[in-house]
Amino acid sequence: MKVVITGGGGFLGLKLARTLLARDGLTASDGAKTALSKLVLLDAVFPDHMPSDARLEALRGDVSDAATLERVLTPDTASVFHLAAVVSGAAEADFDLGERVNLDGTRRLLERARRCARPPRVVFASSVAAFGGTLPPVLDDSTTPTPQTSYGTQKVIGEYLIADMSRKGFIDGRSLRLPTIVVRPGKPNAAASSFASGILREPLNGVASACPVAADTGVWLLSPKRVIESFLHAHDLAASAWPSTRTVNLPGITVSVAEMLEGLRRVAGESVVRRVRFEPEARIQAIVKTWPARLKTPRALAMGFRADPDIDTVIRDYIADENISVVR
Amino acid sequence: MKVVITGGGGFLGLKLARTLLARDGLTASDGAKTALSKLVLLDAVFPDHMPSDARLEALRGDVSDAATLERVLTPDTASVFHLAAVVSGAAEADFDLGERVNLDGTRRLLERARRCARPPRVVFASSVAAFGGTLPPVLDDSTTPTPQTSYGTQKVIGEYLIADMSRKGFIDGRSLRLPTIVVRPGKPNAAASSFASGILREPLNGVASACPVAADTGVWLLSPKRVIESFLHAHDLAASAWPSTRTVNLPGITVSVAEMLEGLRRVAGESVVRRVRFEPEARIQAIVKTWPARLKTPRALAMGFRADPDIDTVIRDYIADENISVVR
Repeated sequence: MKVVITGGGGFLGLKLARTLLARDGLTASDGAKTALSKLVLLDAVFPDHMPSDARLEALRGDVSDAATLERVLTPDTASVFHLAAVVSGAAEADFDLGERVNLDGTRRLLERARRCARPPRVVFASSVAAFGGTLPPVLDDSTTPTPQTSYGTQKVIGEYLIADMSRKGFIDGRSLRLPTIVVRPGKPNAAASSFASGILREPLNGVASACPVAADTGVWLLSPKRVIESFLHAHDLAASAWPSTRTVNLPGITVSVAEMLEGLRRVAGESVVRRVRFEPEARIQAIVKTWPARLKTPRALAMGFRADPDIDTVIRDYIADENISVVR
Repeated sequence: MKVVITGGGGFLGLKLARTLLARDGLTASDGAKTALSKLVLLDAVFPDHMPSDARLEALRGDVSDAATLERVLTPDTASVFHLAAVVSGAAEADFDLGERVNLDGTRRLLERARRCARPPRVVFASSVAAFGGTLPPVLDDSTTPTPQTSYGTQKVIGEYLIADMSRKGFIDGRSLRLPTIVVRPGKPNAAASSFASGILREPLNGVASACPVAADTGVWLLSPKRVIESFLHAHDLAASAWPSTRTVNLPGITVSVAEMLEGLRRVAGESVVRRVRFEPEARIQAIVKTWPARLKTPRALAMGFRADPDIDTVIRDYIADENISVVR
């Protein structure tokens, strides 16, 4: 079977690609475990070192470009992981860019997916940024999305398009509202949530890190390891396991900035934690404070999705997965 | 001030136009009552007999065409009533048509509205078709939209776009989730809800009417008179009166088909009611049964929106407003 990952050059896209290539196939729409024959990654940029595998093709292009999508989503495409997006901070700073990539891009991708020989499984990376504003202290599966960013709005619209096109039988969609992913490797990015990884990653690598939000700021988080597991689990579940919304809030854990730093202290020591300083940034705080920090996710748990056990495990997994030599 | 009505050639659009022309102006964004200087109606079709008024311009065109929108929404536009849509039954039968008009059309209209000299007030006719599927017996202001039609999906997406663009200060939007409008004058249309007016209108005019749904089917309804009042009230309210979603479920009354016919009997007599026969249609029943029949609307009531007192008044208002000579 042929699989496409949009945003395939990004950190999560590549991690998903590596896992798929190493894995014993995927569950096809008929329920049978099927071998991966081709994996196409679409992204604007790819790193220099890509996995070497005859099944792998990396294609540079714009996810909002119809001709590019036509080249990538050929009729034999069985599954699409749609991860490409302009991140929250960037979509807020440049409304037109966010609309073009996050809204038109998703729309065009789904239009193209609909032309496949069989309705493909489409796993969509939505976000907890679907929620915002005046929220209950603990959100649950019945909480109505009220995004307070353009990024969150564009993600929610993607969910509704996917639900409707699944109902019509054009695609077999599944949307996952991702918690903030911690610890992201690599460089800080334009996501307003970038700090949540930065205050752990930078100190572990011997680099100073500025935290733009207060120590009591709560973050609803999930590790890269668990989110990749979630993408694959979401893909392999039968269509009948999904509600008509085709959308699920992924489980996560609520950890404050202070608790993250305590975890860092336990795992790596005081000398590492001392590399973090607090430098409040109103713009970031304004976006982050609209995100929910605490959710109950009984639906996802019943469907078999799992959160990380605790922040210490999240930090240790990062060190192990990314082969980090902790600088003390 | 210049006002635009999309769908201005339709029944509600024209009724709104006549009311605006007769009215002592509208509340402008600075809160001052301002005279109507120009009223542009955009629609694909207009009736032969249009109101005669120097301020009125009727423009034939497609609401999803960017060039047409550019002609209609000139920078001096102060307010837009966006009523144009492909109705539920038609959007369900022709997915592409619904996406083009209801989704792309709304998107382009908002993009154009954003280019006005001042952020225009945009009143959007959304729908109770935002809700569907497995619903609580009584919906309220916290119920999450779960549309089970493409029409409903497209309306919900319009609401989210309007909320986000209002948050960004590009427009000053207000979305109203309309109940089923009863009694619509004129001919049956492709809306799945067409019967709800037909079983009252046709018999009053001496014509037989087939009811495609069961007698115990409940309908959440609002009269044309009240919906026009609601559009104007929604327009004139200050931006601060609106929640961040910029969306409100309009008040209505729950009336079963049997209760409609009892009302018809009280107002017009048994000979009129006898013109209705039941001819179940699975396709219509399947759409209508996904719509909610009972809502609590405390937010709208607190904002000053009002429902009709009862079905008898709704029928009598139709007879009076449309100058009907009841055929007994």
